Formats: sequence, C-alpha cells, structure tokens
Amino acid sequence: MEYLSVSNAQKCILESVKFSDVEIVGLEKSLNRVLVRDVRANRDLPPYDVSAMDGYALRSADLAKVPVTLEVIEDIKAGDMPTKIVQVGQCARIMTGAPVPQGADAVIRVEDTQAVSENNVRIKFAVKAGNDIRSKGEGMCNGEVVLTAGTEITPGVTGILATVKCAQVQVYCRPRVAILSTGNELEDMDDPVDPNKIPNSNSYALMAQVQALGIEPALLGIARDDPAELTEYLQRGLKFDVLLVSGGTSVGVHDYVRPAIEALGVQMKFWRVDMKPGHPLAFGITTKTAVFGLPGNPVSSMVCFEQFVAPALRHMMGHTRLYRRTIVARLTHNIKHQPGRTEFVRVTLAKEEGGYAATSTGPQGSGMLLSMAKADGLMVVPAEKTGLNASEQVVVQLLDGTVFQNAADFKE
Amino acid sequence: MEYLSVSNAQKCILESVKFSDVEIVGLEKSLNRVLVRDVRANRDLPPYDVSAMDGYALRSADLAKVPVTLEVIEDIKAGDMPTKIVQVGQCARIMTGAPVPQGADAVIRVEDTQAVSENNVRIKFAVKAGNDIRSKGEGMCNGEVVLTAGTEITPGVTGILATVKCAQVQVYCRPRVAILSTGNELEDMDDPVDPNKIPNSNSYALMAQVQALGIEPALLGIARDDPAELTEYLQRGLKFDVLLVSGGTSVGVHDYVRPAIEALGVQMKFWRVDMKPGHPLAFGITTKTAVFGLPGNPVSSMVCFEQFVAPALRHMMGHTRLYRRTIVARLTHNIKHQPGRTEFVRVTLAKEEGGYAATSTGPQGSGMLLSMAKADGLMVVPAEKTGLNASEQVVVQLLDGTVFQNAADFKE
Repeated sequence: MEYLSVSNAQKCILESVKFSDVEIVGLEKSLNRVLVRDVRANRDLPPYDVSAMDGYALRSADLAKVPVTLEVIEDIKAGDMPTKIVQVGQCARIMTGAPVPQGADAVIRVEDTQAVSENNVRIKFAVKAGNDIRSKGEGMCNGEVVLTAGTEITPGVTGILATVKCAQVQVYCRPRVAILSTGNELEDMDDPVDPNKIPNSNSYALMAQVQALGIEPALLGIARDDPAELTEYLQRGLKFDVLLVSGGTSVGVHDYVRPAIEALGVQMKFWRVDMKPGHPLAFGITTKTAVFGLPGNPVSSMVCFEQFVAPALRHMMGHTRLYRRTIVARLTHNIKHQPGRTEFVRVTLAKEEGGYAATSTGPQGSGMLLSMAKADGLMVVPAEKTGLNASEQVVVQLLDGTVFQNAADFKE
Repeated sequence: MEYLSVSNAQKCILESVKFSDVEIVGLEKSLNRVLVRDVRANRDLPPYDVSAMDGYALRSADLAKVPVTLEVIEDIKAGDMPTKIVQVGQCARIMTGAPVPQGADAVIRVEDTQAVSENNVRIKFAVKAGNDIRSKGEGMCNGEVVLTAGTEITPGVTGILATVKCAQVQVYCRPRVAILSTGNELEDMDDPVDPNKIPNSNSYALMAQVQALGIEPALLGIARDDPAELTEYLQRGLKFDVLLVSGGTSVGVHDYVRPAIEALGVQMKFWRVDMKPGHPLAFGITTKTAVFGLPGNPVSSMVCFEQFVAPALRHMMGHTRLYRRTIVARLTHNIKHQPGRTEFVRVTLAKEEGGYAATSTGPQGSGMLLSMAKADGLMVVPAEKTGLNASEQVVVQLLDGTVFQNAADFKE
C-alpha cells in the first residue's frame, strides 16, 4: 500500500471535494463566510471633498504669515451643505466628514487654532492646500469593484458591505458535517466510569475543531465493533456532506471500519499518510460525501483534522486560505527524530527579542491529549531529519487560542 | 486635558471593567469560553498499561535473536481484558489501546511482523522493554488538576473536558454589548442612497468585531444630533454591560455626545489617546456599564476597538490573553511618521525566507475603510519615530482573517 506524503494527501483531498452550494444570508450572519460574487460601490465616498478633522476650512494662501486671525463665516456640520463661499481672510468652522465649502482648499484642526471671538479665530500654524481634506471618491468610486469574489468576510469587509448597503450577502454554504466514533472500548459522556474503558473524547474534540471553523456538526455517537451496527451508523453518516469517522482504520485484524466503508460504495483514495502522529489516516468519497477515517488516538485525530479536514472544509466554504498560519521560531532544545515520517510536535511559544521561542510540551505520545490542550502550535519536523538542534529555526503552525496574547508587546 | 498613551489607556480600562458573572453551559456550547474552576481527572488514563500500536505484545528478552517466530496465544481487542499470561516464546495479538497482558513487557507493531500461520507470527526486529506501551496514568492520574481556572476552552481543552466527563462547564458569561452610532450625516442600511449622507458602516463593522469575540451585540441604531433623542438612546444603551458609542466624541462645537453622556452620570476616565488613527477615544463607567466613545471614522473606530474594546471584553470573559497576537516582520518600504502619537498602519503580510514582509495597504486616511478590509495586520509605529526604513524589523498585530494562510508552507 502506498504511503502518501502530507502534501500529496492534502492535494488528493482538495481535488476530490467540491465547492458547497451558495446561499443568501443577512449581513449580521455573514462573518467569516466567503463572497460568491464581486461587490461594487454604489456611490462615491466621500460624495464630495470633506473635512478629515474638526477644525476650520480656509484658504491656504491666507496663512502665508501665521499666526493670523480669520473671520468665521459659517458652521458646517457633517450632514449639512455649505451655503457660503470662503473669501480672502475668511474661514468656516467645519466638522469631520462635513463638505469643504467653495473657496477653501485646506482644513486646519481645531487644536491648532484659538477662538478669539464668536466670529473670529486665530490660526496658529500654516497648512498646505489639501491639508486634512478627504477628496471626493477617495474611499470608493461609484461602480468600482470594492470586494472580489472569494473574499472572506472579516469585520473590515463587513464595514464595506454595510457601506454599499449589502444587507443580504451571497456566500458559500457551510458543509453539513457528521462525526462518528467507533470501538467497543469507548465509554460515552453519559456512561458511568468503567476503568476498563476509554472515555470518548474524540467526538467532542472533533466537534470543537469543526465549530472553530464556524460549522455546527452532528454527533452520531459511538458505533460498536459489530458490522451491522457500524454499517447502520455509516449509512446515517453518508447522508452528510462530510463524515468524520474516528478510530478503526488501522491495520489490525479487528478493524471492521474499512470493509464496512468500502461495502457502502465509498471510493477510498488512500489509507495511510507518512506523518506522525496520524499515520492511519484514510480518505474516500461518494458522489455526495467526503469520508475521513481519522486515527482513534485523540492527538492523532486532532493533528490529522488540522492538516486535512480543516483545509477541505475551508475549501468547500470557498476560502483560499486553507492552511494553519505558520511562523518561524527558535527551538529551545534538541529533539530527536527517526527519519521517515513528517512529525508534528506540540509546542508552547514564548515571545523573545525579535520573535518566538518554541518548546516541546513534553512526551509526544499520541495518547497525551493534555499536551494538545497546552500547545500553542505544532512544530513541523521534516521527514528526513534525524533531529533538530537547540537554536535552530523551526516552522510552527499556530493552533486555536493563539489569536490573542498576554501582553500588547509593542513599543509605543 | 491629558492625552493618555495607548498602554495607559488600556491599563485604565482594564482596571475599570469587572469580570462577568459565571454560568453553566453544555460542553457543546463552551468553545472559546473560559473555565471558572480547576478541572480534575476522574480516573487514571490509560487505566492500565496499554498498547500504543496494533501489533503483538511480547517479552523483549525473546527477541535477543531476530527474526524469531512466536506462538500467538490470544487476541486482545481494545475494551477486552487479557485472559492469559505470556510465557517464554509466546505473544498476544493486541490492538491499539488494549491492555498489555501479564508476562509481556513490550509491543511490536504489526508492520514489523509477518503472520506465519493462525497461531504463529514471525517478529522481524528486536524492540526494547516498554516499546509502544503507554503506561498506566501516563495521560492523566486520578485526582490531578488537568485544567486550571482561567483556561480558554480550545478544541484540545474540549477533548480533556470530554475525557473527564465534564458535560456541563462553568464559564464566565459573555458581556451584553450594545452598539450605538450617532450623527445627522449617517444614512442607515434601509435608507435610500443620499449623496449628501455617509453610510453607517461603523455599527456593522463593530457588530462584526464583537461577533468575532463570540458575543452577539445589540444594534441600537442611529441617534441623531438632538440632545433629547441622544439621551434616550444612551439610556437604552446603559442597560447593557458595555456600550459602544460611535461618533460624536471629538472636540467640535456640535458634539452633543459628551455632555449627554456626562449628564447621565457616566464617570468619564479619559477622552483622548495619543494614537493615530483613533485620537478621540473616550472611556467611562457607571456602576453597571463600561462606555466606549469610539471615533466616527470607520478605520479609527475599528483600530480603537482592537486596542481597547477587545481587551476589555476578553478580560470580562475571564481571558488572560487580551491583546492581538504580534509578529515581527520586515518592512518593505520607507514610511514617514510625524512624531507625537503611536501610529497603527494597515499592512498586508507576505511570507518570505525566515518570516514575513509587511507592506502598507497604501494611503492611511482614516476614511479608507477598504484598506482595513484588505489588511492582514496593524503595524505599530512608535510615537517618537520620524519614520521607519525599508528592511527595518517592525511589530505587526495580526487581524481577523490571518488564522489560515494560502499554502501549508513547511518542508515535509
């Protein structure tokens, strides 16, 4: 049986899964979704030259000598239109966003002025023509494409959609995902504690990983090691767009999962990936469903999800950014590696001068789920390395929980 | 009036806001929330020495000379208990997670063996005592604290909570957040396009920023520049834990917001921060509500949210990671900076050998919301700098949309 590299397995998966259907959702439900179509501006913004500051609109030529006192001829609020033309020696009090009156070619902010009387203001500094004026159309021009198809809706994008009054947005659907755990050894959440059994953590960890991508999965429960029961559960799972089956895909003689999956007409693409943890990772498709056979070990399952399932789900939702963000960090200690498989080592990250230091969470056994709970990232050890040395620059995939950090950490 | 530095303003805010109440939620609703109490293991995991592989449990001393053929005395599946003791020259077929039988001190994976007959297997390689055995309690020991109070519930943490059967989790509540925009110049989503007005993007961009933190905010709409109307809206907002008021906090003579807020008994802590964009950032509290006066400019509003509101909301929800993740990047071009205020420059990031390159999104006018939609991060320019040079190492805060990247970007 061929063992695929991580990248070849990713490639095979992405070539096999399809874009989701599209749907229209309200702007308030659209965060993190992906635009199906280009979005165009429906107006010029600003609609005319406007002030960028609260201050005074004036003629820059009047400031040849400063300080100078100008006559205030008008108050212009945002939402007002000016009614007067600014002549030599005059100015208009103006608010941020208000239209610059005819005659004026610059704005000076109120902090750089001093009110002398109701109708006179002292200008302390000279400014150039155009100062603190936002030109007509500088933000967007009517008709121009402001957001392209394939754009992920971040808060900044939401702001643009609101600006062009896109109250309803066409986005890719979220795939419907089912999660199935398998194995006689598993004890579910509601079962009493039995020391001879293993708690079913995979269903829930996978649930959370799917939720982190914005999808609410269906938990199908635990299928026991009985071909008929397993087939029934799998049939239920094959009604979804994506089925995650945890456990039962290794080469042991007691694995019912492989024959049961194949008997249901799932076309298996591969059964093994050259990685650690996560060796027994299977993938297949039907005309409707992408099926991932994830390892039964909790850590392996989570690592495989990050490398293969998350990119597939994001691809289906129209994203172009499919892979975990990586950074380069300094390894704080030597680690050994048996050449052959790409290894993902759970690490914590610490800030240091110029970047990050990465430190292993400790023993990397694939049953060590606590290490996954503590990890900031997955350090990638290339397959052919015999180890990595302290101070080497390493690549770390950032995991959930790293979007924010303890300190602001910048010089202000 | 004193202008606070960014860090002093952050400090003032964090000292003023309170932890939220606590509530109990189902595990399936707990992602990204924060644990109020320590969580302890309720069992040993594994409950006994178990196999880490599908293979054969054997006596390592029997492998002094390999290959060697051993007698297979039993099949042990995960969930089974062994019934026989492995004697010299014997082994047991064993599945991942199944208990290691008495007599055996190592496991060899099935790939390193060859079945000779139903009851005999040829072992191709020697392994040491302990090989591929996960020891009792290696994952967790009954009674030990596995998760400490204050832990954010990431998928790995969800796995641990499921492992210890924590179906209900005590977490900090999400604060109730209201968003109010102000100004006669604003045109709301349902209004017809009026070239003399400015579309209300702030309410929606802020909505998305709040949603990105896992909170569903209430949109109060637009209060016009009328003291009575504004007071009514503010009173509605002061029923929430956090009120975000966008616009109307600058020093212009037409700003009704400041007196209206103060008249309602909000104790204002500050009105200005030495930053750009975002100068007019106000903050005050009542016994119930934290009130943020955000600038009316869309970009300023969003930047201020990231620096001040997000840390406050995360603090209230019990998080210790409050600030946007920062990385160090190489600036690709010179930029000028007028000394005085800390500046946040919208940048895009590109991968390059050893790290990231940061490039300004272009003109940084605070009306340029498109630049915020395109930005991967905010580059921080320290207040006293006169500029930054191409190739300088700069600090960049990563914004939403950067959790994933286009390529896997590691050597495998």
